[in-house]
Amino acid sequence: MAHIKLHNEQLPGIVGLLDYSQRTAKPLNDLAEVLLVGNSTLSKAEREIIASSVSYWNDCHFCHTVHGAAAVAHLGSPLSVIDDIKHGLQDTEISPKLRSLLDLAHQVQQGGKKVLPKHIAAASMQGATDQEIHDTVLIAAAFCMFNRYVDGLATWSPGPIEAYGEMGQMLAERGYAATTPVLEEV
Amino acid sequence: MAHIKLHNEQLPGIVGLLDYSQRTAKPLNDLAEVLLVGNSTLSKAEREIIASSVSYWNDCHFCHTVHGAAAVAHLGSPLSVIDDIKHGLQDTEISPKLRSLLDLAHQVQQGGKKVLPKHIAAASMQGATDQEIHDTVLIAAAFCMFNRYVDGLATWSPGPIEAYGEMGQMLAERGYAATTPVLEEV
Repeated sequence: MAHIKLHNEQLPGIVGLLDYSQRTAKPLNDLAEVLLVGNSTLSKAEREIIASSVSYWNDCHFCHTVHGAAAVAHLGSPLSVIDDIKHGLQDTEISPKLRSLLDLAHQVQQGGKKVLPKHIAAASMQGATDQEIHDTVLIAAAFCMFNRYVDGLATWSPGPIEAYGEMGQMLAERGYAATTPVLEEV
Repeated sequence: MAHIKLHNEQLPGIVGLLDYSQRTAKPLNDLAEVLLVGNSTLSKAEREIIASSVSYWNDCHFCHTVHGAAAVAHLGSPLSVIDDIKHGLQDTEISPKLRSLLDLAHQVQQGGKKVLPKHIAAASMQGATDQEIHDTVLIAAAFCMFNRYVDGLATWSPGPIEAYGEMGQMLAERGYAATTPVLEEV
């Protein structure tokens, strides 16, 4: 049961929190939209894979699975790729640049000061631009927030990855800004 | 030197990043505004103290000091209170409710799943409402993002706390939304 009163069984994970606090939902959805859907030289699938990986490292089942499902929807891959994200994408072909950005994101997940010049140099060597490095750091940092928000209030979410396919498809099609509930007065 | 090219000596800490990436600056500033300045039964000083404390636990000098300076400006206290935040406010009188919310924020800083029913019960026992518990968790989570953003890109910021007095005063007076740079096309 969540630590505060939510309509969480109808609205799992962060959705229950966005419904509970509509004045914070707006900037949170806007941030997800610009990071994961807005124009970027990183594909939407690549950005969702970073989000899902960070969430897995933070042990946040809901965010890991729903963003994995969004990545899968962008790629047209089977849901089993979500489990491969848990294992560092051993069985999924991804570019050396994305691997270096995932390494960078893993440092950020552990703490800002864990990022050393060698991690930046490794990403640059694979062709990552300053903007891509910036965006990767901010996506990883943002999911250190979203994950703590979702688990810090003990929200409920479904267990099996199969329960997330439709939600992933919807996020891939409509993005995050569209899911913003009507704003209440601040 | 920062990991990417910023105008960081004129624009220290996160300010250089908000300038570098104006499309992400807007939702980040909007989130800070609603969490730290918007209507709440927690005072602005209390919320800045939570932000500054989490940033200290995350070892983020810029965020710790600038939000400490904002708290000091709200309280009309000397800048030395910033150092007392480092020591868990041993020499500053704060309410038992704020102490219980700081304990809750400390759990969130360590990870979402570190928050246990006993931490929620302790805050409730001191009179914290569901909304205050929600807001504390989200402030703590948000600073786990801001801190990683600032340090993950190795931004520069001044050392001495005295350098932050004016910035703290400005934030206390004008808030965060006002500092949003003009939006570029996304």
